[in-house]
Amino acid sequence: MIKTKPTGPIPPGYEAIDGELAIGGHKASALVAENGSPLFVYSTGRLDSRIAQLRRAMPDALDLHYAMKANPFPPLLRHMVGLTDGIDIASGGELRMALDAGADPEKISFAGPGKRDEELAQAIQAGVTINIESPGECDRALRIGETAGQQPRLAVRVNPDFDLKGSGMKMGGGAKPFGMDIELVAPTIRRLRDAGAHWRGFHIFAGSQALSADAIIETQARTLELAARLATTIGHCPDHINIGGGFGIPYFPGDEPVDIVKVGKALSEQLNQVPDILSSTQFAIELGRYLVGEAGVYLTRIVDRKESQGQVFLVTDGGLHHQLAASGNFGTVVRRNYPAAIASRFDEEPAETVSIVGCLCTPLDRLSDNAAMPTASVGDIVAIFCAGAYGATASPANFLGQGAAREILVE
Amino acid sequence: MIKTKPTGPIPPGYEAIDGELAIGGHKASALVAENGSPLFVYSTGRLDSRIAQLRRAMPDALDLHYAMKANPFPPLLRHMVGLTDGIDIASGGELRMALDAGADPEKISFAGPGKRDEELAQAIQAGVTINIESPGECDRALRIGETAGQQPRLAVRVNPDFDLKGSGMKMGGGAKPFGMDIELVAPTIRRLRDAGAHWRGFHIFAGSQALSADAIIETQARTLELAARLATTIGHCPDHINIGGGFGIPYFPGDEPVDIVKVGKALSEQLNQVPDILSSTQFAIELGRYLVGEAGVYLTRIVDRKESQGQVFLVTDGGLHHQLAASGNFGTVVRRNYPAAIASRFDEEPAETVSIVGCLCTPLDRLSDNAAMPTASVGDIVAIFCAGAYGATASPANFLGQGAAREILVE
Repeated sequence: MIKTKPTGPIPPGYEAIDGELAIGGHKASALVAENGSPLFVYSTGRLDSRIAQLRRAMPDALDLHYAMKANPFPPLLRHMVGLTDGIDIASGGELRMALDAGADPEKISFAGPGKRDEELAQAIQAGVTINIESPGECDRALRIGETAGQQPRLAVRVNPDFDLKGSGMKMGGGAKPFGMDIELVAPTIRRLRDAGAHWRGFHIFAGSQALSADAIIETQARTLELAARLATTIGHCPDHINIGGGFGIPYFPGDEPVDIVKVGKALSEQLNQVPDILSSTQFAIELGRYLVGEAGVYLTRIVDRKESQGQVFLVTDGGLHHQLAASGNFGTVVRRNYPAAIASRFDEEPAETVSIVGCLCTPLDRLSDNAAMPTASVGDIVAIFCAGAYGATASPANFLGQGAAREILVE
Repeated sequence: MIKTKPTGPIPPGYEAIDGELAIGGHKASALVAENGSPLFVYSTGRLDSRIAQLRRAMPDALDLHYAMKANPFPPLLRHMVGLTDGIDIASGGELRMALDAGADPEKISFAGPGKRDEELAQAIQAGVTINIESPGECDRALRIGETAGQQPRLAVRVNPDFDLKGSGMKMGGGAKPFGMDIELVAPTIRRLRDAGAHWRGFHIFAGSQALSADAIIETQARTLELAARLATTIGHCPDHINIGGGFGIPYFPGDEPVDIVKVGKALSEQLNQVPDILSSTQFAIELGRYLVGEAGVYLTRIVDRKESQGQVFLVTDGGLHHQLAASGNFGTVVRRNYPAAIASRFDEEPAETVSIVGCLCTPLDRLSDNAAMPTASVGDIVAIFCAGAYGATASPANFLGQGAAREILVE
């Protein structure tokens, strides 16, 4: 007997039409017939409802930023520009994409530890806020601004002295390449203000992909406390503070969604109690994965069904070149199964234990390991969920000469 | 005190000119000044000498195939077509690239567990050998050949009942999506011969990235024994047997290169002793990483030097979007440092412990962790070695809007 391994929880709200998984009212087979396989499908309806739900839970005055690194697909990005209060970018390439998608430069902020001179120049010229990551980067930005005859808009990214507990990616709480250590913040802000640059505020990001509301609440409290302490040292109220994000989504068996109502309630209380030095500050949270992750599905067609030593393999025309993280090869130590289904038999009960693999000639290319699935054959379509974030662009599309998957935005 | 972590061994033969790392006679700074940063540099001189050395060590009659998945950069591929006896491809995309590079279709073979119908049609039309991975794929190939009015050239890929001990990637020795189990081989060959297809032989690949000569010798012996057993069952001498590759290269501290002289000597003896049923078989080994890995260097410019809590970070304009495996995020459980150096200070002694990170806004983007390096600053150039295989195309180039690195082939 082969031991079945569980798959992660399918995000709620995906339903069947004529027995098939439907996305935005379209059956998986119709989407693949029209657009080919493999295919990323993103749903505007799911984006809209996710953001509406979040807005209801969060304090009214809080801005909501989209970290476009999670998914920069142009039609999706355009949609997100309309739904959010700002776009957070991480490169000159993302700056071009954000401007092309219609984002207001005043609502764009640029973070990233390795900004090239050309990228700083491009950002200054566009008038976006640069989150300065080191004293050296501050000097470069001031010099480039001076040469260009344009004062840069600079926020300071702080390396917080705490991390986000239980987060998948820790961005603070130790020696880090991100932001600057606390003792460097005030001197850097004095320096940039003296140079005539426009000081925008702080960016404090402690971690990402946390599911515990209590951990997020604690981190937000410490972030506000740190911001107040820094503002007091500087003696000026920052216009804007990006308190980071870190809201995760359930990928794996046992994962539970973040209790955003609890987080929002606590954050409202915290924002009502900020000291006077932050009384006119505009606060923002920055989310990527949380906004778009569950709105995307990766569909891939089965091209072979084979048995080896009693085990069944469903071989698809997709793989880790589009779904690196789902294959367990991106920042994970122990491979676990993402939520997955046979999309073309979405309402059938599991009938066998199968491994779903990609088409690449490497044992790393496994989409689902010994999962319980309805019996599927060549031509059936596999769905991998949670494909809306860190999918297409976070995977090596050209590996083994494969190329990118098509992406579409549906209702 | 920060504990220094060792870096992997720099491949022998890289030398300094005016204190800088030189590749094919060009200084790192000149290469970057002319071509930009980040930059992959591949050396034809190193490819030539590696292959000459291997030819000397291996039996004269053995064919040498290049598995182009390791590095499909067109100028490099053209060079490899001239140096090797065959090109092994893994997709329709690689088939186009191989043909464009001037490979003779008769010397191309196509392996991969998820071949689409279009790819099978493309391969049959081009007249390349298809390594059939399952009875179902055999049926599809025969049907497509019949429709096209062209008999396919089919080899059978075998899932061996042993693996390559100590290999980084096991391709045999258990239930696998690659090839077909031994008991399916003879019936499948009978079926394809009965259908009039041209049976080319076997493909038996047990694993890759092994450094132990003894493990490779044992695997080759078992591979030949298995091939003889299968040929005897079928009652025909196969024209061609691809016995796989699996020769690794040293990436990490303590790794030693494969003793290819020992492997070649043992393989000569084994090939001299094959039973009569294999007496007119042409044997080939298939290597990717071993041929090209050490011929490539990734160069990336330092854009920031910063300290955080007493630790030094050199932030580069490159990163895991070009060097996923070196960042420790591709098929590795415990992150270890690839061979690395400050290319622009190649002959200076180590003077400090630094972490070299990429420009991406993620803690995963680390190229070298707490390594001993000469003191470097903004504008210096970092070299990551062993970048000739599974670098550019095995990394998510578009992550965070970055885009691909330039690649060049030098002398």
